[in-house]
This record gives sequence, structure tokens and C-alpha cells, in this order.
Amino acid sequence: MLSTKHLLDLETLSAGELTTILDTAESFRGVMERPIPKVPVLRGRTVANLFFEPSTRTRISFELAEKRLSADTINFSASGSSVAKGETLRDTAENILAMRCDMIVIRHDQSGAARYLAERVSANVINAGDGMHEHPTQGLLDMMSMRHKMGTLEGKKITIVGDIAHSRVARSNVWGLSKLGAEVTLCGPPPLMPMDVEAMGCKVDTNLRSAVEDADVINVLRIQLERQKDQRFPSNREYARLYRVDEELLRHTKPNCFVMHPGPMNRDVEISSAVADGPRQVILNQVSNGVAVRMAVLYLLSGGQPESLGESLG
Amino acid sequence: MLSTKHLLDLETLSAGELTTILDTAESFRGVMERPIPKVPVLRGRTVANLFFEPSTRTRISFELAEKRLSADTINFSASGSSVAKGETLRDTAENILAMRCDMIVIRHDQSGAARYLAERVSANVINAGDGMHEHPTQGLLDMMSMRHKMGTLEGKKITIVGDIAHSRVARSNVWGLSKLGAEVTLCGPPPLMPMDVEAMGCKVDTNLRSAVEDADVINVLRIQLERQKDQRFPSNREYARLYRVDEELLRHTKPNCFVMHPGPMNRDVEISSAVADGPRQVILNQVSNGVAVRMAVLYLLSGGQPESLGESLG
Amino acid sequence: MLSTKHLLDLETLSAGELTTILDTAESFRGVMERPIPKVPVLRGRTVANLFFEPSTRTRISFELAEKRLSADTINFSASGSSVAKGETLRDTAENILAMRCDMIVIRHDQSGAARYLAERVSANVINAGDGMHEHPTQGLLDMMSMRHKMGTLEGKKITIVGDIAHSRVARSNVWGLSKLGAEVTLCGPPPLMPMDVEAMGCKVDTNLRSAVEDADVINVLRIQLERQKDQRFPSNREYARLYRVDEELLRHTKPNCFVMHPGPMNRDVEISSAVADGPRQVILNQVSNGVAVRMAVLYLLSGGQPESLGESLG
Repeated sequence: MLSTKHLLDLETLSAGELTTILDTAESFRGVMERPIPKVPVLRGRTVANLFFEPSTRTRISFELAEKRLSADTINFSASGSSVAKGETLRDTAENILAMRCDMIVIRHDQSGAARYLAERVSANVINAGDGMHEHPTQGLLDMMSMRHKMGTLEGKKITIVGDIAHSRVARSNVWGLSKLGAEVTLCGPPPLMPMDVEAMGCKVDTNLRSAVEDADVINVLRIQLERQKDQRFPSNREYARLYRVDEELLRHTKPNCFVMHPGPMNRDVEISSAVADGPRQVILNQVSNGVAVRMAVLYLLSGGQPESLGESLG
Repeated sequence: MLSTKHLLDLETLSAGELTTILDTAESFRGVMERPIPKVPVLRGRTVANLFFEPSTRTRISFELAEKRLSADTINFSASGSSVAKGETLRDTAENILAMRCDMIVIRHDQSGAARYLAERVSANVINAGDGMHEHPTQGLLDMMSMRHKMGTLEGKKITIVGDIAHSRVARSNVWGLSKLGAEVTLCGPPPLMPMDVEAMGCKVDTNLRSAVEDADVINVLRIQLERQKDQRFPSNREYARLYRVDEELLRHTKPNCFVMHPGPMNRDVEISSAVADGPRQVILNQVSNGVAVRMAVLYLLSGGQPESLGESLG
Repeated sequence: MLSTKHLLDLETLSAGELTTILDTAESFRGVMERPIPKVPVLRGRTVANLFFEPSTRTRISFELAEKRLSADTINFSASGSSVAKGETLRDTAENILAMRCDMIVIRHDQSGAARYLAERVSANVINAGDGMHEHPTQGLLDMMSMRHKMGTLEGKKITIVGDIAHSRVARSNVWGLSKLGAEVTLCGPPPLMPMDVEAMGCKVDTNLRSAVEDADVINVLRIQLERQKDQRFPSNREYARLYRVDEELLRHTKPNCFVMHPGPMNRDVEISSAVADGPRQVILNQVSNGVAVRMAVLYLLSGGQPESLGESLG
């Protein structure tokens, strides 16, 4: 059971809580393999998905997780909504709660939006990505995929490549992986490295070749094309020349080193198509694990006990 | 049981029918307090939500009401739809009906759209706001919230403040409240008062202070910012100076007078934040009652009997 | 049972398979007449509706079919999605599959998109319209409506009127109708006739009056107003003068000849309002049959047996 009623970040979770979520997600991964991958643990509960930023992939993953737990779901996206009419985040959320929603999944372009909400409403709040802060369920699904592949995270070497400074995925990875004993190296163009990188307890290496030579996992971040207008940002061509993960690079890694990507991919910018479709990637496995991790988080935050899960799942 | 098969307005409902809906809504309010707030009374029925005007709040409220009655729901919004391809309202509706939908919830920017539809299709039609005509479920939820707070509407004094002439919320309030014996005063800038105000049987007072001094309830309408281009419309600043409901104003009301707002609020335009979050408002209660009222309307129009409701709700 | 695992077109289906689908659809038409038109045959299965082109009507028809089979549904539309972020069709589809969706319904503006997908994913793929290629469920619902009215398609004369060259509806009609023994005549302005018309085994007649004089059915295609910029395309007024199906035209047909239209209609362009609302049309019947045909296709592709359908439907 979790000590918190919300999932806002991985920074404040304990190693024990992270492990509980990952173990619970493994059980739900089993549910997903069944002919009818549906369990009644959230029957009659309502989950509101508030997406103030567009996101198909994460929204669908949450929605599937909710439906497979038999919850009722309400989708809210910012366009054409009360928000467009000038309503505050708090008013929007309080209204949705007053309709008696039990849980809120929120994606927002402002760092801290999920916490702001959690401090003001009585429902369970799940952060589905807030600005440049965190994207904890992405961090969890990445950790689940790594643990599944290697058995443990303890002592494993993970290199994260990309625009680290602006990446909530990177931040959630760093916090979660460090707590479970992995060693994280951050790699990317110097202007795209975060200021507080030392405080996060990671190594930094701006040279891709040396950053991956000892890695067990390379986690490739998506380059956000909308940042191209930023002066500090290299062109796609320049970025790809120095930081694309391709087959040539993989020849200089350990033979078992595998490649992850949170998607959606810019093929042949941050990752070559040969790697994206090749034997070393576990990208679609990440996507499957995403649904399982979200089922686990919804189950645990709703008060589900890890020890009675077997019974609930029949 | 209602004598009509549609809910198009409150103008043509009898006092008895209004009371039946409000009483039924109280029962559904009880359902919403249950751990699993779901009943199977509309199982297998399909409700189509046709929103030709954007509206998150009302659409979600109806959708939740439908799901809690176990109906299947279909959402249709005008953007990107056949309507954009030039199809008529009638053709759109007949098509949706031909797919065997049982009930249609319609919001439309043309006054009379709901009635137009009701005269042409066999499904039950619920008006979720049509132009400047009526918004009957909003009127009902306002009445429910007032009755809940005061026990009765008979003899109570309700002051509605805002752009009365363009407000379907005001019109539904006036019709419903008058029928149940309340005295309604309308207050707002003179150019925003309706022509037919005497015929509606209300008092008119363009001075806010005197309009509220004897009131039991102040119902504050939303100022529609999109009307600001209209010459007759005062600026936000001018409007707020003369018609904003704030704590200073509440010092000149009866001590039990409370404040309502249909949302979404323009904080510090028509209502001050202190009042919006203060002890005299029942705004979120209105939102909760909105789901209950809509469950009641769906139940009754589908042929549900008020007297057998207890049984249906188990 | 079908020999294919996907429904990509009618061109490659056998007469026997077409008949199986139509017969199964008749059974589901019966289900739709029930007080609770819902059967549990796809309970716990997930169907993803991927609409890369806007379409209210077809999307709602599929969604209703899925819900009446008790499937869970996920809606995906291109706007605001990963696709807008530059993701490939294949990556989008593989992601949705990795979340364990069982079936994919796809509409896309590229001819061949459904086949491309079917060759790359393990789910059942249903083509809901791909470019100018085919729209097989529309073809099937047209055939069902004709067979229902006439008892058989064998030897019947069907005239399709409109922009044949660009119409996936026309192509699916031609393939399906020919296989079941109907004789198809194509009629429209010469620049809008397809190149391969002879290969398709149809008659061509660019004169509307002579094209319909012997017809049992006139299937009127929708004129796509967005094509008006094309030089080869006549103006609406010019088109209506030569090719509009109106009451005057029907005086020169066989007395039992009836009129179909896939919708949404441009009233008084390709079809007069008097005909659209008159006694010779079966347009809303087509819409109802659309849901039944889609239920049949979903049922059969999911492995349902025609012979055990009676049992499944209770």
C-alpha cells in the first residue's frame, strides 16, 4: 500500500513504494494476457482524464487502464472547454469533483499543476506529465521494462540521451532509477543539460560514444521539434550527426545493451529506423507495460492492497 | 411521471411536474453518495449527446448522469462533423436516430433547435441549452439547490443579476421559480434587460444594492466575454463597478442570503473571489445537483415512475 | 466464417462470404429491435477506432456497433494526436496494438492504408474508408438495404450516379453487387468516370435519363464540395442541372425503383429534398443497416461462427 494518496512524482516515493508499484504492475501485466483482460476492481468509480496538453498516447493508455479496471471514464481536453472560456484550473477541477469523480488524471503544461490540484481537491490525483517537472507513470513503465529485462535495477548502468533539461521523462527516470540502485548517466548537447544535474546524483557525459560504452540500457528521449525555434537548440541534422542512436553506435556498446524510447519517435532524428525496428529495442514492450503500470497506480491509490490483489484478480 | 416526452423548457411544465423532477433528483442525489453510485435503470439504452456549441461542463454532467444510469453514450460535437459538411440539423438527428438511439441531449446556438428536433424525431429530446431561449436542466438544478437550502421555494425572494436579456439560464429560472411560488427580481444594466420582462411576472430593479436587500438568494449570471464587442455592453471594469457581487454587497443583504453561479465564473468580474470561495456560496453544490437533476430527467423521460423509483434503486 | 482475418475491401471477398456477412447482419438487425439491443459477444475485447479523416457518421455507427457487442472502445482522431507530431501510421498502430487492442477500425485519406496496416499488425483490421480505394462496410450496408427491399440482388439493375472516379463507395458497391449477380450501371459527368470502368464489368452511361430508365435502384453518391476547386469539376448548379435525382426524373423510372444515398446529403445538389424525404427513398434504412452490418463484421472477424450466432444472441 502507498503512503500517499496521489502520484505526483517519483522524487518523493520511497524505494519500497516504487517496488510495490512495479510488483503490482507485473500482476496486471498478467491480467492483460488473459482472453478477457478486465477485472472489476474499480467498478462504479469515476476517473476524470483532464488533458490540458494534447496527448493521444498517454491518454489512451490511461483510458484503457481505467476501462480494464471497470471504471467509468470522463475525458476532458482543454480545447473548446471552460478553460478556453477563462476558467481557472482550480475551478475546473472542483467542478469535476463536485460531480463526484473519484480520481483525476491530469496532464498540464505548467510544472507543479498536479501538486497544485492535489492540495486543493479530495480526489486522488495522478500526474500524467506536468511541464518540465515529472511524468511519473512514464518513469515507472521505463523502470518496469528495464527490470523485466534484467531482473533487477541494482547496479545497472542507464544512459539517458537527449534534451535532458526540458524532459520530464528524464527527471522521473533519474529519481526512480537512482532510488532502486541504478547508476544514471545523462548525455546530450551541453546547452540542453540541466543546471541541477549534480544535485540529482547522475554522471554527465556530452559525448555519446563514451556515454554508452558501458551502458546496460540506452533510454533515448524524443526531440521536441517545436523547440527548434529556440536558438540554443541544434538543427535536426546537427543533432542527428552527434546524438542519434543508430546501429553504428550499438557496435560500441555491450552486446546485451538494449534501447528504449518513450515515443512518439522521430525516426532518423534521435533514433535510426534500423534500431527502432531492430532486435535491441524494447519499445513496444514499454507501451504494453504502460497500461499495466497505470492499472497498478489506479488500483493502489484507490485503496487496493498489494497482498489482496491475487484475490481481487480472481 | 411527466406528461411530456421531451424536456424542452420549464415554461410549459406544471408545478406538479417540476416538483416530481426535483423529488426524483433528491433520490438520485442519494445514489450519488453511495460507494458505487451506479444503477442499472437505463442499461442497454443509448443516449446521444449532440453538442453543436462547445460546453465541457454541461456535456460532462450529462455524460456522468447517463453512465450512472448504465446507459451507453455517444458523443457528437459539431466540429469536424457532418454538420461542418453542410448537413442539416434534421438530417443529422434522423441519422443518429436511425442507428436506434433512445434519447437525444442537444445543445445548439439557435433558440428553438430542441423543439424543432422534438417535432421531427421519435426519441426523447432533452434541451441542454438552445440559443437565448432556455436551459431547463440548469434551471432545475438551481431550483433544487435553493429548495435544498431553504426547504421550500414558496414565498422566497430570488434576485438574478446579470445580462438577463441574453440569458437562457435566467429564462429557465424565471419560469421554474415563479411556478413554485418564488418571487423573482431581475437586476442588470438597463440595455441588458429583456423586453418582455413584465410579461414574465418579475420585478425589475437596475440598482444592485436595492435589488438584493430583501433577497433570500442571489443568482449571479456569467458575463459572456464574447459579447463585449456589442456596443450596448459595458466594459468588464464598468460592469464590475456596478454589478459585481462582492463581500461589501453581502453586508447589505439578509444574513442568510446565499449566492449561486451557474459557472464557469469570471472571477472578479461578475463575482468576487472572496464570495466565490466564501461561506455564503453554494456553487459546487449546484454542480453536484446538476448530475442528480439530469439523472432524474433521463429516468422520468425514459418512462420511469417516481413511485417505483425506490425499488429500481434497490 | 470468413476466410480472411481483415475486412479491407469487397473486391477480394467471395460471393459466399458476402452472403454470410449479409445474413449475419440480418440477425443483428433483429438484435437492434429488442428493448435492450445489446449482446455480450465481444465483452472484454478492445476495439480501437483510428480516424485519420474526420467522419462523424461512420465513427458513431462503428462505435454503436462495438458497444452493442459489449466491446470496450478507444477513439483516436488525427487532430492533436501523435500523428500531428510526425509519427508514422505504422508506429501509431503498433503502439495501439501494444496496449492490447484486439481490433482496429481505420479511416485514412490514403488508398491502401488499411492494407498497409493489416500486413504489419496482429489485430483484425477493418477498413472504414481509405482514400479513393474502398469503403467496404458502406458497400455491405448498401447491399443489405437492396437485398432487404428486393429479396435478392441476382439480376437486379443498379445505377450509381455521381463522381464515380473519386468514390470509394462506388468501388465497393461495384465489387460487391457484381459478385452477387447484380448489373451495375455507372453514370456521371465524363471527366468524373474512372479509367478502369470496363475492367470493373459495369455499363457506363453519361446520360442520367437513359441510365435510370431500366433501374431497380438508383444509388446517388455525395458530391464532395471540397472538389469544386478542381477545374474538371462542374459547378454545383451545372451538376444539379444534369445529374440531380429529383421527382421529375423518377417519373421516367420503373414504378418500384427506389433511391439510396450514403449521406450526408447535399440537398438540392445531387438529390432533391422532395426525393430525399419522399416515398421512394430508403436512406434512413441504410443508416440502421450500417450498424447491423458493422456488428456482423466485428462478430465474424473476431472468430464468431455464423452457425452458433443464434445461441450467442440468446
